[in-house]
Amino acid sequence: MSTRPTVTLYIAISLDGFIIRPKGQLEWLSKDNKTDEDYGYNAFFSRMDGLIMGRNTFDDVLSLGVWPYSGKTAYVLTDQDDINADGVIPFTGTGEELMAQIGQQHQQLWLVGGSETVKGFLNHGLVDEVILSLLPVTKGEGNPLFLPTGRQQPWKLAGMRTFGSGLVQLHYHKEAA
Amino acid sequence: MSTRPTVTLYIAISLDGFIIRPKGQLEWLSKDNKTDEDYGYNAFFSRMDGLIMGRNTFDDVLSLGVWPYSGKTAYVLTDQDDINADGVIPFTGTGEELMAQIGQQHQQLWLVGGSETVKGFLNHGLVDEVILSLLPVTKGEGNPLFLPTGRQQPWKLAGMRTFGSGLVQLHYHKEAA
Repeated sequence: MSTRPTVTLYIAISLDGFIIRPKGQLEWLSKDNKTDEDYGYNAFFSRMDGLIMGRNTFDDVLSLGVWPYSGKTAYVLTDQDDINADGVIPFTGTGEELMAQIGQQHQQLWLVGGSETVKGFLNHGLVDEVILSLLPVTKGEGNPLFLPTGRQQPWKLAGMRTFGSGLVQLHYHKEAA
Repeated sequence: MSTRPTVTLYIAISLDGFIIRPKGQLEWLSKDNKTDEDYGYNAFFSRMDGLIMGRNTFDDVLSLGVWPYSGKTAYVLTDQDDINADGVIPFTGTGEELMAQIGQQHQQLWLVGGSETVKGFLNHGLVDEVILSLLPVTKGEGNPLFLPTGRQQPWKLAGMRTFGSGLVQLHYHKEAA
């Protein structure tokens, strides 16, 4: 049995690998017209009991004006311990140190992003599951989800779904390297 | 009707977006054991009547010791006009200039890679079709397929296939921007 919670990287990217930021996600979902299609988000969200994100992602989400993660503890990796918000726990160390501190307090953690935070987790083999939503667009610019880590890691394809909008959702589990 | 040939970007990348180079492809295919599975390659290859690649990709393929594209004209974008090989046409201009020169000599061109060549084609809206083979591995380093172009482009999902090895093949057609 694992002595730490499962970490799931669940994120939307463009076909050319750039992170779709929260505002871009809302724009794309509304452009799509199918406002009743949640792409499995609610089922995923209720499966998670905590969130991890970097400071830039946190600030990005805050800029939406509504905190969409109420009811779940959110850990924010940040250099500046200046966050004071309900249910949000700032952490001024590495992802590895955060995971050690969290210990058994959570079972299922959602790794929200962004690039630097994901890099740190991948680099230490701390991502157990990847759910990528691939939007049918090449953005041509932005923050690439995957930065070089120097670490190779095989994954097992656990499933995939396509949607009428052209979104492809790919689901992977970590394999023994 | 189009006044130029259709250009298809057909390429294998890792889950983290790095190009799987020819040697890496062979290694992966042999590791997979299913040597009778060609992932649709032969059907695709016979549909093409010409190839375009950059100089680094050309040198990479040459290093295999066997030229795998016999019978199809291969255009190589290169700064140094020092290539003298059967069926290989060096071209010392941009992708846009090459397409203008090719004109109606071809119907279906395979854009083989690499990053810089693909960037030039995407940047000028010269890619009509994308077939991405996504290997179930994060490589952690290499040449990213998609460099920033500054150009946003929507795509229409035309199909997808999964294989027992975990390879996912995604097929897109260009959409009006």
